[in-house]
Amino acid sequence: MIKRIQPRTLKGFRDYLPEMMMLRESIINTAKRVYQAYGYGPIDTPALEYAEILLGKGGDESDKQLYRFDDQGGRDVAMRFDLTVPLARFVAQHAGELGMPFKCYHVGPVWRGENTQRGRYREFIQCDFDTIGTESLTVDVETGLVIADLMEALGFSHFTIRLNNRRVLTGLLERLDLIDHSVPVLRSLDKISKIGPDAVQDELVNSVGVTAEQAKEIGRLTDMGTTISEIVAAMPALVGESEVGLRGVAEIHAVVEGILANRPVEGSLVVDVSTARGLDYYTGSVFETYLDDFPSIGSVCSGGRYDDLASVYTKQRLPGVGASLGVDRLLVAMEEQEQTEPNRTPAEVLVAMFDGERWGDYLHLATELRRDGMRVEVFPEARKLGAQLRYADRRGHRLVVIIGENEREIGVAQLKDMQSGLSREVLRAEIVAEVRSILRKDQ
Amino acid sequence: MIKRIQPRTLKGFRDYLPEMMMLRESIINTAKRVYQAYGYGPIDTPALEYAEILLGKGGDESDKQLYRFDDQGGRDVAMRFDLTVPLARFVAQHAGELGMPFKCYHVGPVWRGENTQRGRYREFIQCDFDTIGTESLTVDVETGLVIADLMEALGFSHFTIRLNNRRVLTGLLERLDLIDHSVPVLRSLDKISKIGPDAVQDELVNSVGVTAEQAKEIGRLTDMGTTISEIVAAMPALVGESEVGLRGVAEIHAVVEGILANRPVEGSLVVDVSTARGLDYYTGSVFETYLDDFPSIGSVCSGGRYDDLASVYTKQRLPGVGASLGVDRLLVAMEEQEQTEPNRTPAEVLVAMFDGERWGDYLHLATELRRDGMRVEVFPEARKLGAQLRYADRRGHRLVVIIGENEREIGVAQLKDMQSGLSREVLRAEIVAEVRSILRKDQ
Repeated sequence: MIKRIQPRTLKGFRDYLPEMMMLRESIINTAKRVYQAYGYGPIDTPALEYAEILLGKGGDESDKQLYRFDDQGGRDVAMRFDLTVPLARFVAQHAGELGMPFKCYHVGPVWRGENTQRGRYREFIQCDFDTIGTESLTVDVETGLVIADLMEALGFSHFTIRLNNRRVLTGLLERLDLIDHSVPVLRSLDKISKIGPDAVQDELVNSVGVTAEQAKEIGRLTDMGTTISEIVAAMPALVGESEVGLRGVAEIHAVVEGILANRPVEGSLVVDVSTARGLDYYTGSVFETYLDDFPSIGSVCSGGRYDDLASVYTKQRLPGVGASLGVDRLLVAMEEQEQTEPNRTPAEVLVAMFDGERWGDYLHLATELRRDGMRVEVFPEARKLGAQLRYADRRGHRLVVIIGENEREIGVAQLKDMQSGLSREVLRAEIVAEVRSILRKDQ
Repeated sequence: MIKRIQPRTLKGFRDYLPEMMMLRESIINTAKRVYQAYGYGPIDTPALEYAEILLGKGGDESDKQLYRFDDQGGRDVAMRFDLTVPLARFVAQHAGELGMPFKCYHVGPVWRGENTQRGRYREFIQCDFDTIGTESLTVDVETGLVIADLMEALGFSHFTIRLNNRRVLTGLLERLDLIDHSVPVLRSLDKISKIGPDAVQDELVNSVGVTAEQAKEIGRLTDMGTTISEIVAAMPALVGESEVGLRGVAEIHAVVEGILANRPVEGSLVVDVSTARGLDYYTGSVFETYLDDFPSIGSVCSGGRYDDLASVYTKQRLPGVGASLGVDRLLVAMEEQEQTEPNRTPAEVLVAMFDGERWGDYLHLATELRRDGMRVEVFPEARKLGAQLRYADRRGHRLVVIIGENEREIGVAQLKDMQSGLSREVLRAEIVAEVRSILRKDQ
């Protein structure tokens, strides 16, 4: 007797069934198409790296979450927890061969053994794009354009890109003589959307140790005006005489102009000088992207400029700009947006089977339809019509081609439209043309 | 001072640079397109599984090669070593929700800590398609049709699909009263292409312990004739009165007929009753696929019918047929087949930059070209023409658009054709149309 093993996935991991996976593939294909339109080329790196490559790059929290172990050869290895650290290692290792500037995209799973509360998974897909090896602001502008194109291509017309520049924050901290407190101040600022500006002010005074005066000045970040031009006009006062700050102001100005000159997203582009983004490695432009209809899922595309990501691996200076599309968050939004039952098959057409002896005929009809560019499944067994129609209904086939003995004898087929529920009789010789014309009308 | 870490990948693992990755993506996209045309839908499973799910499914060798460790929660986990065992777990776990028959494809990395000799990698991509839940031979036929379509879609017109049926081998072993020796006999048979039929005969007698007479009968497997009809006609004598064997003969006959009725691959379809395929779980049809111009890389698409893959996870009987496309082997073949230097960018067009102050103009031109459906990169910094042309040459851009001060003043651009090396002057307003017409001619 066989000892059975319970079929189950690990906590925090999940299977993708076709309906979810078709959505995931369509998001990723759309992202790749947009990335390629800007000249980003694909790369990939291994799931496993030497642990020393990954350790200490994402903070203590991320070190603790590493899936880390000794391999068969006794090497200390770990599974990648993001795509940015492997990218840094990759460009340091291959810089000579790649040539700079280097534009790439990278789609793949990453693993974090983190708490699985709040619907977080321990395995998820990242979908990054980066330009390495140039300080030119044109690539900051392009990052904004790519994000806007992505949202539109994915079918979200209501979205908001929040743009900031780390240098503006540095400028403010310089003016307030708080540059030594920048890490805790930025961490507090990062909580604005969660706990509100008043609570951030309290935290700044009580936990970070800034004066009430300084906290009030920092509080001005959230109250800079409503239009881009108001905010941009108010920024110089924020940074005073700080050189870094003034450079940040000029950069925001240029990036905004560059984006707006290339596409009319004014309503969707917001300058938000309180956007800090927790990650320590950003040094210039910072981007976050929110879907107006799904505010609760957080930013679906975030990134920014980093001065020198790979310095721990190479002495070559490799500045860059990049961002990451949140595939899993988008999946949530797209599932909510779907009005209809999701499809479970990529095939528009199901060829039903009635006479098991004549399976060759059914296969041949499917081949004819495929030659015309259609996606076609043949039901593999002769079963009752009702069972095959229920199968088609559940899977989401658009049309079912029915040829029973009667139809075969008089050289016709029934075409069953699964949307309307109506059937019509067509001549055997005209099936391909009829199916084609129905599918075309759908498009 | 920063302590530098050497940027390196683990032994047996590799990075994919864009030129290799673009090839890999094109293979996988082609495979997905073919799978979808037959109604296979995408699925995915986690990289990590409970170790008990994976252990003992691929033999001792595969257990030893598992990347296995205790996770943060003390669970005994391992990285998947193929996609077939996770598929078995997947269909057992979700059978009710999926409905049968179930057609799916699955593309993803797998990991085996095996010896890295002979260019084998410890991480590689599998690209499987399977039909679960039916014993109908129509899906055996479809498997052959999918393989033929795959090879053709990937650009290989010279290929050979080797078809066999395990039942024929079982029938022969029954007739020879060797059914208790079937595992070592099939293992020996599997070596024919490596060590030749004579050495296999020796091994059968000296190591497996069959008589010289029996070995001679087994040897007939490799000498059944040259055409499909000769071989099919000779098969009944092979299996004698064995019921299983005769069923196998009838199945081969039906599958051959089904395949040939749907596409003219007679020259590419071979019945080879000596094809055993090492994996123990095959029970019916068995497929291997060889590229005639690249015999040394082995089978690029292999699979077969399994009676009951998921029996260790569920009492529900789930027979199926599937095969796996060898993406890494195909990459080797396609790299050798490529006559020209591979491209390193998806962008056909590079917009060169000369006047750094006017970067907005260059970005805007790129946006115009993209709106027309082209893939366009903007060089991000003003550099000398020579440097930008070398960049374009190395990356593989097809066209470079050049607008320096002179061109701007008189409202023109130079279009540099990187294939011919020739430039021509076009009016600024006609750049999009000109570029489009040159790219169209390439197609």
